[in-house]
Amino acid sequence: MKELTAEYMACPIRNVIDRFGDKWSLLVLYGLWRFNPQPLRFSELHKLMTDCSQKMLSQTLKSLEKNHLVSRKQYAEIPPRVEYCLTELGRSLMPAIAPLLQWSLDHFSEVTDGKVIV
Amino acid sequence: MKELTAEYMACPIRNVIDRFGDKWSLLVLYGLWRFNPQPLRFSELHKLMTDCSQKMLSQTLKSLEKNHLVSRKQYAEIPPRVEYCLTELGRSLMPAIAPLLQWSLDHFSEVTDGKVIV
Repeated sequence: MKELTAEYMACPIRNVIDRFGDKWSLLVLYGLWRFNPQPLRFSELHKLMTDCSQKMLSQTLKSLEKNHLVSRKQYAEIPPRVEYCLTELGRSLMPAIAPLLQWSLDHFSEVTDGKVIV
Repeated sequence: MKELTAEYMACPIRNVIDRFGDKWSLLVLYGLWRFNPQPLRFSELHKLMTDCSQKMLSQTLKSLEKNHLVSRKQYAEIPPRVEYCLTELGRSLMPAIAPLLQWSLDHFSEVTDGKVIV
């Protein structure tokens, strides 16, 4: 075993992927990507992932915004309108996630044993 | 907005990626991949990710084994020797994760704002 590999291998996973590698973040990114460049409102995003609580969706969006993957635009209207879309950085991420999505489709039954959440 | 896209888009992310998309699972998979086909013992894996508690590492390995990504082999020795390696399914996953790792290296500073965990 080589020593001191931990820091090297931990780097991108700990510092970058860990910021958007959770289920809800990926669903938000994928939802925004599908409609890109059309921005989505909070309620439209929520329709795409109804089993995510509004609180969790709100936290997820804040985290993605903080990590520069999603941008939020608020319009001075009554009632206030808030729209979300991918940043340039967020758009650049999606081709890197695509092979993982494809693998997941290809090996769906092998991983899940057919126990599927619909 | 199209209706009923939730089930379609949720499928691979909810059912497959969610099973190994967390930081610790990715670190285990990546660690085993780096040493593949040499199997690693629990203590060797733990050396690669010392800030993961033994309990969390044990849970992560059980989950990856259950999802057919990691195999566990126990030798009838005293003290008992247990080794882990990637399954064929686990090995097939790694090329799909590689573009994500590369993206994370390429965009490290943009996502992290330089706030890095070493």
